[in-house]
Amino acid sequence: MYNFDKKIRVRYAETDQMSYVYYGVYAQYYEVGRVELLRSLGISYKTIESMGYALPVVNLSINYKKPAFYDDKLTLKTSILKIPTSKITFYHKIYNEANHLINTGEVTLAFVNKITGRVCSAPDFILDKLQTKL
Amino acid sequence: MYNFDKKIRVRYAETDQMSYVYYGVYAQYYEVGRVELLRSLGISYKTIESMGYALPVVNLSINYKKPAFYDDKLTLKTSILKIPTSKITFYHKIYNEANHLINTGEVTLAFVNKITGRVCSAPDFILDKLQTKL
Amino acid sequence: MYNFDKKIRVRYAETDQMSYVYYGVYAQYYEVGRVELLRSLGISYKTIESMGYALPVVNLSINYKKPAFYDDKLTLKTSILKIPTSKITFYHKIYNEANHLINTGEVTLAFVNKITGRVCSAPDFILDKLQTKL
Amino acid sequence: MYNFDKKIRVRYAETDQMSYVYYGVYAQYYEVGRVELLRSLGISYKTIESMGYALPVVNLSINYKKPAFYDDKLTLKTSILKIPTSKITFYHKIYNEANHLINTGEVTLAFVNKITGRVCSAPDFILDKLQTKL
Repeated sequence: MYNFDKKIRVRYAETDQMSYVYYGVYAQYYEVGRVELLRSLGISYKTIESMGYALPVVNLSINYKKPAFYDDKLTLKTSILKIPTSKITFYHKIYNEANHLINTGEVTLAFVNKITGRVCSAPDFILDKLQTKL
Repeated sequence: MYNFDKKIRVRYAETDQMSYVYYGVYAQYYEVGRVELLRSLGISYKTIESMGYALPVVNLSINYKKPAFYDDKLTLKTSILKIPTSKITFYHKIYNEANHLINTGEVTLAFVNKITGRVCSAPDFILDKLQTKL
Repeated sequence: MYNFDKKIRVRYAETDQMSYVYYGVYAQYYEVGRVELLRSLGISYKTIESMGYALPVVNLSINYKKPAFYDDKLTLKTSILKIPTSKITFYHKIYNEANHLINTGEVTLAFVNKITGRVCSAPDFILDKLQTKL
Repeated sequence: MYNFDKKIRVRYAETDQMSYVYYGVYAQYYEVGRVELLRSLGISYKTIESMGYALPVVNLSINYKKPAFYDDKLTLKTSILKIPTSKITFYHKIYNEANHLINTGEVTLAFVNKITGRVCSAPDFILDKLQTKL
């Protein structure tokens, strides 16, 4: 397992009239979590794309436990549990400053060859980085 | 089962640099789907809130099948399968104009009494409307 | 002058904890207004892009008069006043159902040749459509 | 004049199919800029609201110079030029890592008494903090 923590500050734009962070905003937070996890391994998501891969999301699930509020400084905990094949799954937990669990979620992305448009294996430079850490 | 269909046009703002509708945007589309389903039953979400209920989302899951693109006119198919208790679950399917399935999803919301902050039963005026239709 | 009206329903996602439509959301509404104005002239924004043009926004200004709220059915009034050169300016007014003016705004976009990356003249097929209407 | 700089990383969600940061997203970035400027003065926007004030935006203008792209680490430069009366204006400049100017903008907000719904003077605790800095 490889973990990475990232702090994120809730924007006013992300709240709704219930004063909660809108439920769809967490998809963006999870994106930030997985991009920063990869960066911590020396992998740039931007580079993955420029090398000819797309990484569309194929599955998202979120269990909402408590609301987050405006200006909360949240901790995004992101994990990878196993070496990816043609898919990679990220596990997310978000905590507020009182260390209450806000929600948990899973996001699975597929590696796609941008030229053929087909699902493909995860590229070696990603596997190499992950193999030393998992 | 009660179904409702709603058309939605993809905005430029909703695309990302892969040219796909961003995966988190579908949470908004699902919101539109369930609000319009309720409206078709004579139930206004705004009225639910003004009667002292909040309806936070407790669960979201999405299976992404195909991307949607800018300016696509999508069909959101939203269903309720059973009479809500303290929770209500909406089932979603999104199709593009070629009738390809874009994704399927489920959203579960809880009825919360805004004064006590506690989960409560679905209000009678909602149960009454649904009972005649399901 | 050429005008086009478009109805838009405020989404829950678009509200903030003040219960107002978030001030940045109107940029999206204006986008919908100008795209639908062009469509009403037989011009597809998607086609403009596929013909090799990009239309980045170079100027945005909004005067906010009154807030819009969740579930409001707004009327977007969009106008073009003159034949575009290398830029095109859209004028926007948004009204709520009580016919109160919510805000007014202007958006100027530049025509850019996607291959050269340079500003260019508006393509003839747009000028032709507009010339008969303005 | 009082200035504050804040770094912000572009999210994938914020790009559009032109690969640019969507023009409406900068309203959110400007929000982050002014909130962090106030925080640097010991003023919490959240506290302003909890003391009975709302701060709706009355005016927004943006001049777009260059696009920002996915994963860019932008520098938001936010300034206040003068002591607010019933309105407060923030001046924004955004630069990319190559120190190119992305855009400049102005946002004016009004102080509103949440009970009366009327525009009011800026509260003393804000004026006090600003007077020592401007």
